[in-house]
Amino acid sequence: MRAAYYEGNRTISIGEGRPVSPAPGQVQIQVSYCGICGTDLHIYQGHMDRRVPRPHVMGHEMSGTIAALGAGVAGWEVGDRVTVRPLGPCGECPACRAGHSHICHRLNFLGVDTPGAFQGLWTVPADTLHRIPESLSLEHAALIEPLAVACHDVRMGAVQAGEHVVVQGGGPIGTLVALVARDAGARVVISEVNPFRVKLARELGFEAVNPREADLVAHVEEQTGGAGADVVFEVSGSAAGAEMMTKLPRTRGRIVVVAIYAEPPKVDLHRFFWRELRLAGARVYEREDFEKAIQLAALGKLPLDRLVTNVYPLGELASGLQQMEKGGDVMKVLIRCGEE
Amino acid sequence: MRAAYYEGNRTISIGEGRPVSPAPGQVQIQVSYCGICGTDLHIYQGHMDRRVPRPHVMGHEMSGTIAALGAGVAGWEVGDRVTVRPLGPCGECPACRAGHSHICHRLNFLGVDTPGAFQGLWTVPADTLHRIPESLSLEHAALIEPLAVACHDVRMGAVQAGEHVVVQGGGPIGTLVALVARDAGARVVISEVNPFRVKLARELGFEAVNPREADLVAHVEEQTGGAGADVVFEVSGSAAGAEMMTKLPRTRGRIVVVAIYAEPPKVDLHRFFWRELRLAGARVYEREDFEKAIQLAALGKLPLDRLVTNVYPLGELASGLQQMEKGGDVMKVLIRCGEE
Repeated sequence: MRAAYYEGNRTISIGEGRPVSPAPGQVQIQVSYCGICGTDLHIYQGHMDRRVPRPHVMGHEMSGTIAALGAGVAGWEVGDRVTVRPLGPCGECPACRAGHSHICHRLNFLGVDTPGAFQGLWTVPADTLHRIPESLSLEHAALIEPLAVACHDVRMGAVQAGEHVVVQGGGPIGTLVALVARDAGARVVISEVNPFRVKLARELGFEAVNPREADLVAHVEEQTGGAGADVVFEVSGSAAGAEMMTKLPRTRGRIVVVAIYAEPPKVDLHRFFWRELRLAGARVYEREDFEKAIQLAALGKLPLDRLVTNVYPLGELASGLQQMEKGGDVMKVLIRCGEE
Repeated sequence: MRAAYYEGNRTISIGEGRPVSPAPGQVQIQVSYCGICGTDLHIYQGHMDRRVPRPHVMGHEMSGTIAALGAGVAGWEVGDRVTVRPLGPCGECPACRAGHSHICHRLNFLGVDTPGAFQGLWTVPADTLHRIPESLSLEHAALIEPLAVACHDVRMGAVQAGEHVVVQGGGPIGTLVALVARDAGARVVISEVNPFRVKLARELGFEAVNPREADLVAHVEEQTGGAGADVVFEVSGSAAGAEMMTKLPRTRGRIVVVAIYAEPPKVDLHRFFWRELRLAGARVYEREDFEKAIQLAALGKLPLDRLVTNVYPLGELASGLQQMEKGGDVMKVLIRCGEE
């Protein structure tokens, strides 16, 4: 089987993979699809060279079928269609002991800290598996991981039916957050500057505002009778997003920070005081978020097809990364890992 | 009766007051004591000249006895000992309609937006009154308003018995927050740079750390087995406080922003993401916070005497303001308004 290796210095090589026989408690998966995450792009750009070994197989947004079972694995059979919740908590740190093992102090993130799914065969602990229902294609199942992020974000934001929600950033995660919030009964506005993504958001039935062209604050005020939004999801990771996020919520409104900030931005703490705003960070997902994501995707109500703009063979992973980096007319890029 | 007037340009004049006869629904109070709030200092320094008329009578942390009743005021009698919850909500804005009238969009703050209590007789709406129990002195009753702030802050922080709490800033509000959190069963560390306030905190039985001299993060980590604090109250209003507040909490720990920031500081939003931290702004108080403050003060368990470092006659309000501005060996400054 083949594997794609990050070699450092913005270089991906394609070579022979090294299949790992499943140890007790592990399974080996024949990988079907694996999406490119922003984190993979970040690794490719060299920003995580201190954390990531080289050569390194990236990839963690995947789907596949079980190819082999390690000893003692119960409840799974060869051929089962699965996706992986790629978290390896230590089980012993204060976060794990407090029940927050998904943000373990020593979290082993599969595909970042250990080899990932941009290869033909991937071996992982069986307790990371989630079953893919019959009604869900393997292609769409590769979106379960980012959809679980969105389910986690919406749960952390405690979005209620009838609430007014603003999502800052209409990329893959922002759009999935918008879809999950709408499924929960919220009225959702997406704030996005990329014209392709604005157009897609509108085609998916969302109100979309380009905050560089329109007055987003006035728009939200008008829609809410001067109250402000109930929940704002900050998915842009921009200084402008950090500035805007405090202008939008109502008194005691909630902000959920989903984006990764490379540098601490300026934040209007006075506005938190003045309106008694609340902010919560949200990172990855817990088991129930994966279950919710699979349930939502399997019902077929989410337009997942529209979120996949590109599907490449494994040998063209570098092209996919470069396309994401360039931006423009791109949302989620999937890599077919199971062929060639 | 006499009154102290802010004239603009760091100038206080003492002159004849203009007693206001209580209109229907109002009461006239003979003011006993009124504390100097940081907001009064802010007004004196000219930072609120766009909001505050001149000449202006400041003051809202007060105690007194009812001198006259307007028509239709039930449940109160002349001579009753009272303090005032100095909030005048509009009752109609989105915040009021949402049940957040204490942070009304058009809040009329008595003593800031209307004349205050640095005068012999003060006329206010009867629905702002809270009764002072027999066991509580009029001097201590002037601390009810800042104590209600602390009760509100601790309630917004949802402090539970056994939790580890850090209070950043050991001035009057910070120390009151620490006292209320300790009363709720928390273990409290106060972070403060002023040696006088560090010493006072220790005399009150708190652990106190000067973060310029000791490693506060390491201290909290050590005390919590590497987990981090459950709740951090940011009362310092400093850039250093905004930077420190995200380093201290455990996974899903809470930060309560009590301080007023003149400028948006840099805030480590990545840490919010990484540890799924939560932040809440907390402003003034609601009725139940005043009731809780009165209950706590009346029980005599709080060392309120230690928080009052100076008591001046009304004619020396300017001295009190200057002393607060200078800092050093000062906590709460009270003004005797009922004499001269």
